[in-house]
Amino acid sequence: MNGEQVLDERLNIVMVETSHPGNIGAAARAMKTMGLSRLVLVRPGCFPDPDGKDRAMASGADDLLAGARVVSSLDEALTDSGFVLGATARLRATPMPMLDARAAAGEAIARAGLTRVSLLFGREHSGLTNEEMNRCHALLHIPASSEYGSLNIAAAIQVVSYELRMAALAGKAALPEGPEPAPVAQLEGYLEQLREALESVDFLDPQNPRHLIRKLRALYLRAGPSENEINILRGIVSALHRPRSGE
Amino acid sequence: MNGEQVLDERLNIVMVETSHPGNIGAAARAMKTMGLSRLVLVRPGCFPDPDGKDRAMASGADDLLAGARVVSSLDEALTDSGFVLGATARLRATPMPMLDARAAAGEAIARAGLTRVSLLFGREHSGLTNEEMNRCHALLHIPASSEYGSLNIAAAIQVVSYELRMAALAGKAALPEGPEPAPVAQLEGYLEQLREALESVDFLDPQNPRHLIRKLRALYLRAGPSENEINILRGIVSALHRPRSGE
Repeated sequence: MNGEQVLDERLNIVMVETSHPGNIGAAARAMKTMGLSRLVLVRPGCFPDPDGKDRAMASGADDLLAGARVVSSLDEALTDSGFVLGATARLRATPMPMLDARAAAGEAIARAGLTRVSLLFGREHSGLTNEEMNRCHALLHIPASSEYGSLNIAAAIQVVSYELRMAALAGKAALPEGPEPAPVAQLEGYLEQLREALESVDFLDPQNPRHLIRKLRALYLRAGPSENEINILRGIVSALHRPRSGE
Repeated sequence: MNGEQVLDERLNIVMVETSHPGNIGAAARAMKTMGLSRLVLVRPGCFPDPDGKDRAMASGADDLLAGARVVSSLDEALTDSGFVLGATARLRATPMPMLDARAAAGEAIARAGLTRVSLLFGREHSGLTNEEMNRCHALLHIPASSEYGSLNIAAAIQVVSYELRMAALAGKAALPEGPEPAPVAQLEGYLEQLREALESVDFLDPQNPRHLIRKLRALYLRAGPSENEINILRGIVSALHRPRSGE
């Protein structure tokens, strides 16, 4: 698979709850100029726009709008993805790696050799929620002015798409180590099974039952478990947590 | 002069005969996010815009619009510049060097230590004229899709401003990734605990009891668990694998 094919087939740009249809159109144009084509819209505010602002801003990239996948949840958006990057405007302390756009693009292109990669962009004013960021393997940050760091969302997608193209065409996409990661939905299934088992043995803090699961998600996202590995992890929980006789 | 000062004081973005005021506003925002502040407009089509489209797209970058220098000729725009780069959407045979955006940004920042540098962006539909390009020391090209290379002019200014910022601030420390991994002995301790628990519930293949543990080790080594995370993993095994009453 060459660089152009990776850009065209392996990378999803996922826009979460974008309010303004003009921004969706401008993002489609930004993507297409860099050879990307897979646009996913999670609960867009207004799409397709009856006033045509999306198509006006898309210019010659109407085909990306026509082919955009519109979904009602982030889970649905990520079903086909084994590696997820989330864009954030702020540097913050998180359990997952924080990469600048260039490093993130290099990582994305390397992973795209094994699996589909999704790049998440949040709402115009508030970005991604913490819960949405917790679903990411790593966060992506565009180095910007500390006095005014507010990139328009389509401008951010332009910069990231540009870096993806630069990385894909550099011809030095390092092969990542490790097996093909399972789609993230499978990891969520395992975490749900584990949560139920741990609840039944009163292991979770009743004040904050999701805290531990968040920590475990961050750990496993770093590892990128394969389908086989997730099956092993599931089997372990089942084996250890057999109902007691008499229960 | 540090990187931020070079960005703020030594780089002019020169827009030649831009038609749409919204593009001027979006360009101002793109510049400001990357720490640039000097905007020069050569014969703009409509500026300032009585309908306020320029200010609407500028968002918090109105100060760049207010401070923009409006001139009637390219000569006037370039009076203070000792090095000039011209953006072009097409690769072409020219007598001057043709650089991609990254190389051009590196060159611009290097020159900006000595003199003011101007970067020229032409009309929305037709770019710079040959005569205008002849005024440039070098041309700048954003690598784009051969099928659709038409970046919006503000998007092009965003990419170039981003590369200028990356070049000006190069050498900054990389961002840390993930928590400090625990000494590997702690991981081994966890795997040993898990092996004992799994043996006691007959989960391991008696022909090859270490096979599964090897697979799990590979998984966790990729993640590099912290001490805290290993403690969580140990706690889970203990919680799930409590001796049955009567055992």
